[in-house]
Amino acid sequence: MKRSSGPNLSIALIHYPVTNKNGAIIASAVTNLDLHDMARSAKTYGVRAFYAVTPLEDQKALARKLVAHWVTGGGARYNPKRREAMELVTVRDNLQQVIDEIEAVNGQRPKTVVTCARPRSGSVPYGDLRQMLKAGAPCLLLFGTAWGLAPDCMAQADIILDPVRGAGEYNHLSVRAATAIILDRLLGDFV
Amino acid sequence: MKRSSGPNLSIALIHYPVTNKNGAIIASAVTNLDLHDMARSAKTYGVRAFYAVTPLEDQKALARKLVAHWVTGGGARYNPKRREAMELVTVRDNLQQVIDEIEAVNGQRPKTVVTCARPRSGSVPYGDLRQMLKAGAPCLLLFGTAWGLAPDCMAQADIILDPVRGAGEYNHLSVRAATAIILDRLLGDFV
Repeated sequence: MKRSSGPNLSIALIHYPVTNKNGAIIASAVTNLDLHDMARSAKTYGVRAFYAVTPLEDQKALARKLVAHWVTGGGARYNPKRREAMELVTVRDNLQQVIDEIEAVNGQRPKTVVTCARPRSGSVPYGDLRQMLKAGAPCLLLFGTAWGLAPDCMAQADIILDPVRGAGEYNHLSVRAATAIILDRLLGDFV
Repeated sequence: MKRSSGPNLSIALIHYPVTNKNGAIIASAVTNLDLHDMARSAKTYGVRAFYAVTPLEDQKALARKLVAHWVTGGGARYNPKRREAMELVTVRDNLQQVIDEIEAVNGQRPKTVVTCARPRSGSVPYGDLRQMLKAGAPCLLLFGTAWGLAPDCMAQADIILDPVRGAGEYNHLSVRAATAIILDRLLGDFV
C-alpha cells in the first residue's frame, strides 16, 4: 500500500454508521457498482487504498467475493485493467481499524476528511487540502452510503471540505459521482 | 427545456454506435444506474437536457419505463429530489434527432463535444469550453457507453476535449464518473 512518492491519499466507503431517509442510524448494503466505480476512479487518481467498511459478516463476505472475482478469478483474465482497479479494495470492519492500519504503514495517523452537502463553518477549500497532499500528509477521505455519514462520524473528522457546488441549490450527487469530482479536485493533473 | 439564462449545455449518452471490447460497432444495453447517476449530476450542474440515445425499440421502452417510474410513478412520491433529476431525461433514436431538437429550441445548431481517453492533436482545454459556455453557445456533450463512441461518431464532433488526467497512465473511469468530473470542470461553481 505504501508508495515512495506522490500524494498519500486513501478513501473509505462507509456502510455503517450512516443515516437512512428518516435520519435513523443504519448499516447499508454493499453495492457492486460502488466498488467498481470508486475503485476505477481511485486507480485513475493514484489513490493508495480504497477501504470498504462494514461490520456485517455477510456483507464483508459478499464484498470480498466480488473483489476476488476481479483480482484472482475469471474477471482478472477478462479485464486486466479492472483487476488493477479492484486490487485497491480492502474490506474492513470499522473506521478505527482503517485509521490504525494506515498509521501502521506510514508511522503517522492520517487526517480524516469528510465532505458535506451544505456549507458549514470551518469547512476547508479544495486547494488547501491539495496543498496538504502535495506536502505529503497522509489523508483518509470518507464517503457515506445511503443518506450520508452519521452525525457523530462527521463530527469526529479532522477536516470538513467545502461542499461541491454546481449551478444552484440542487446537490444530490451519487456517492460515485461525488467521489470522482472530489478526487479530480484534489488530485487532477497532479504533477 | 429552454431556460432564459446560464450556460446552454445538454448531454447525450450514446448506446449506438459504440464499440465493444474488440472494437466492433454495437448497440449497448441501457443501464438503470447510468440514467440515475448522470441525471443527478446533470441536475446538480444545471445541464438543460439529458438524452439517452438508442435505436432499439425494447431499450427505448425500458428507458422510458424507468424514467416514468421516477417522474410520474411511485418513485416521484418516494423521492421528489430524484424526480427533479429524472425529469431531465429524454429518450431519442439517434444523435441527429437530438441535434435537430436542440437546434429547433435554440434557433442555433449546438456544437457537439466529445472527450477522448488519450491525447489527440487539436484537443481543447476545459477552460476554453467553459468560456464558450459562459458566452452562451449551445453545446451538446456526448458520452459513449461500452468501450466508447464509434470512431466515425468521434470524428464528426465539432470539439474534442482534452483527456481527463489523473495521476498517471491509468485512465479507465466509468462513464458515470467521467460525466461527473467533466461537468464539474465545465460548470462547477459557475457564477
